[in-house]
Amino acid sequence: MAPSDRTRIHRVATNAHYDTATLHAIVDDAYLCHIAFADGKGAHCIPTACWREGDHLYIHGSNGSRMVKHLLENECCVTITHLDGLVLARSAFNHSMNYRSAMIYGRFEAVEGDAARHAMEALMEKLAPGRQAEIRPGSDKEYAATTVLRIPLTEAACKIRSDGVDDDPEDLNWPVWAGVLPWARTPLAPQPDAACTLPEPDYVSRWILCS
Amino acid sequence: MAPSDRTRIHRVATNAHYDTATLHAIVDDAYLCHIAFADGKGAHCIPTACWREGDHLYIHGSNGSRMVKHLLENECCVTITHLDGLVLARSAFNHSMNYRSAMIYGRFEAVEGDAARHAMEALMEKLAPGRQAEIRPGSDKEYAATTVLRIPLTEAACKIRSDGVDDDPEDLNWPVWAGVLPWARTPLAPQPDAACTLPEPDYVSRWILCS
Repeated sequence: MAPSDRTRIHRVATNAHYDTATLHAIVDDAYLCHIAFADGKGAHCIPTACWREGDHLYIHGSNGSRMVKHLLENECCVTITHLDGLVLARSAFNHSMNYRSAMIYGRFEAVEGDAARHAMEALMEKLAPGRQAEIRPGSDKEYAATTVLRIPLTEAACKIRSDGVDDDPEDLNWPVWAGVLPWARTPLAPQPDAACTLPEPDYVSRWILCS
Repeated sequence: MAPSDRTRIHRVATNAHYDTATLHAIVDDAYLCHIAFADGKGAHCIPTACWREGDHLYIHGSNGSRMVKHLLENECCVTITHLDGLVLARSAFNHSMNYRSAMIYGRFEAVEGDAARHAMEALMEKLAPGRQAEIRPGSDKEYAATTVLRIPLTEAACKIRSDGVDDDPEDLNWPVWAGVLPWARTPLAPQPDAACTLPEPDYVSRWILCS
């Protein structure tokens, strides 16, 4: 997609990506986003669960939440950031971090009826594939109290740093270790509910193995 | 600290924390924050590195960056979120996530001179304890091109969910596994720069062990 006035990246523009595949990969690896919006009290930055279907990012919230009401009537900015590691350069100011981030500008719209149910089931499928068929599904009352929202992934930009150390030539002989210290989001052992005596489903057994 | 009109938490208020120790712990476990601010183009949500000293959160940026200029003249909201796990309940709508988040409202101020150097050295100490003494330190020119900013941790609130499954009584016999699938940010093997033949310092050797 072509960058807009809001999504064109100026700082280290070589790290900018505007293609759909990169954007989808960053969104799909995220379980939460941060949403910026401004009202009479100033700017707010709210974390919330997110997921993707097709060319939209989805969130949900209680009908009564300030954020839900505001987002349906105003523009906002949704940002996802994955922190992948520390970059330890030979000079102080060439230290950096490796990351993958996506920024999406636009306005959310409400998703209604069967489309809302389908979207919430897609969230469950992301969290725990196959679990939707096993759980007590949402009731009409529960759905009625919840708003599902989506924003198009059309005005968006990604920025990625995934390289090694980038020191200036005159610093290359400075006698200090240089390299990248990477992180990963790693699954830890599942913690069954104390009252649960049922065997683990596949998506739980695989949890610890899927890192 | 007492909640302000902007920091008082209304949704699941039992998860709200306003004490300094909780706030400091969430900030100290973070390497980046998201900052919301609004200008003539709307609201923006920008990820950036952060660290704490005393009762302030620090960031830094290029003097010319739009965000740096704007933050020195306007209020903003800084949010940090750690995602700790998925909560798989027996009913669809009781699914949740475990997390620790902090929101800070206020205005950044510039940190100048020796205080700016001290703050940048504190960032290095957070990233790699002891490394500041080993690297090529920042030059006057590098410091002159960089703005260090800090915001007081006075108007802030934290929200934490760290419990297990919280199903309604009538759902407790639904025949499905229930529990928490936790995550951790785990260090992976250090990746030395190809041109680096020096031995690993302690903070690199410990990287993979400190998860």
